[in-house]
Amino acid sequence: MNPSEWFTEEHAGAGSAFSLKIKRKLHEEQSPFQHHEIYETETFGNLMILDGCTMVSTRDNFLYHEMMSHPALYTHPNPKKVWIIGGGDCGTLREALKHPSVEEAVQIDIDERVTRLAEVYFPELCESNNDPRADLKFIDGIKWIKDAAPNSVDIIIVDSTDPVGPAEGLFNEAFYRGCHACLTDNGILVQQSESPLLHLELLKDMRNAMSAAGFTSLQTLYFPQCIYPSGWWSATMASKSALNGFREQDSANKSFATEYYNVDIHRGALAQPEFVKRAFAI
Amino acid sequence: MNPSEWFTEEHAGAGSAFSLKIKRKLHEEQSPFQHHEIYETETFGNLMILDGCTMVSTRDNFLYHEMMSHPALYTHPNPKKVWIIGGGDCGTLREALKHPSVEEAVQIDIDERVTRLAEVYFPELCESNNDPRADLKFIDGIKWIKDAAPNSVDIIIVDSTDPVGPAEGLFNEAFYRGCHACLTDNGILVQQSESPLLHLELLKDMRNAMSAAGFTSLQTLYFPQCIYPSGWWSATMASKSALNGFREQDSANKSFATEYYNVDIHRGALAQPEFVKRAFAI
Repeated sequence: MNPSEWFTEEHAGAGSAFSLKIKRKLHEEQSPFQHHEIYETETFGNLMILDGCTMVSTRDNFLYHEMMSHPALYTHPNPKKVWIIGGGDCGTLREALKHPSVEEAVQIDIDERVTRLAEVYFPELCESNNDPRADLKFIDGIKWIKDAAPNSVDIIIVDSTDPVGPAEGLFNEAFYRGCHACLTDNGILVQQSESPLLHLELLKDMRNAMSAAGFTSLQTLYFPQCIYPSGWWSATMASKSALNGFREQDSANKSFATEYYNVDIHRGALAQPEFVKRAFAI
Repeated sequence: MNPSEWFTEEHAGAGSAFSLKIKRKLHEEQSPFQHHEIYETETFGNLMILDGCTMVSTRDNFLYHEMMSHPALYTHPNPKKVWIIGGGDCGTLREALKHPSVEEAVQIDIDERVTRLAEVYFPELCESNNDPRADLKFIDGIKWIKDAAPNSVDIIIVDSTDPVGPAEGLFNEAFYRGCHACLTDNGILVQQSESPLLHLELLKDMRNAMSAAGFTSLQTLYFPQCIYPSGWWSATMASKSALNGFREQDSANKSFATEYYNVDIHRGALAQPEFVKRAFAI
């Protein structure tokens, strides 16, 4: 294996690494927030790297983007207002806007360069950026939540990088308290919650912080995400009311195309592995 | 990344690679059938490599072994006789023998060295090898199936390496015809069927060959398997009668411990992703 032909991410603390064979580097820059690299790979299409970590590949991003959006949106009874904290590649925004009930989707990413590079190298993820319901803001998501009016949003999707660097403040009780305050009574927070195999302690800490912030109902969802550490990822939903509103009929009759998500996948993603049940004591 | 500190598997044809950080090499040999390596890793326990491909790690093998055994055994109404073709590490044998209905489990692996090395480096997988119901044979599984009496087995688990090298003959219509003949009327064949993301064509070919061999009912199951290519794996069940016998109540009341499998995980593993449904036209 000739290192110059591969992009390799060594998974910090996990003793594992994942590599994709590259044809060429398409772009590299340092923004005020993160180090950006874009590669053309042999088999996964284009690849976005932030601070050395794989973020998005053309080939497999559908798994993550669909599972970050559709389960929460099909669990809320009538999601009209959606905020996406992070998500600068615009893939989650595109999925959220597939729901006809959504009247407004605000994407709040601190680093405008993520979006500008996605527009060039992942245009398919940005195809809804000009939807009149979409509002792209390039400001601090933590401050956005702190300043937001109470009871003002139905769904908050935290589509962030790992809890180091610019996203660190998105994984703690103070931030969750802010989300709790600005969500409506049946509002739902959903956040990417790392690998159940490699980051179980972090997942437990997140869930505990969400509970401490006042969320009374939590559900962790599991799905494959091949380019992320362990290839197995999770998202956690939190609500102040019971998370028992999965609109199965609406999901089964969805009017839009997906690559991974469907009503059976949604149900299946809610199954808790035995070792996780023991860790969460559920 | 210093290559001498890592074991790296480059995934043939897939343009990806997976690496685990190693403490030391524990063993290396060439058997008449395969090249064997055993490593002690930093974070995944011991690691078995056959012909350069990751087979088993202490840390994550439970995912694969549980999903290769329990769904099939809980779908058959009363599994008494089980054959495992391959499976020399004995992990699938251990899981199958957890089912009290099983009276006899024969493991047929052509390479005795796999089992002898598992006994030393993965003793927990071999803890049922002395169960009086267990019978370990080190002979050719293809010949075993060819010579078997008709209607003589309830479950055949094909727990093999990839369809190159010694396992190549386990992925074709002739082999499946043999399995079909020796299974009882409600018998079930289950075989590891590679990565849905990376090997979808192979999966389709396998399913077509199973159908051509006379199996009228097929179900592909999906599960994470972190050390295998893409971290996302599958197994395919085939039967000559309808695969609608999932004993959900028995699964929910199982008398043994698992790390991943439970009744919800079983149901969830049967969910077919959208892109797979389109590929299989189901």
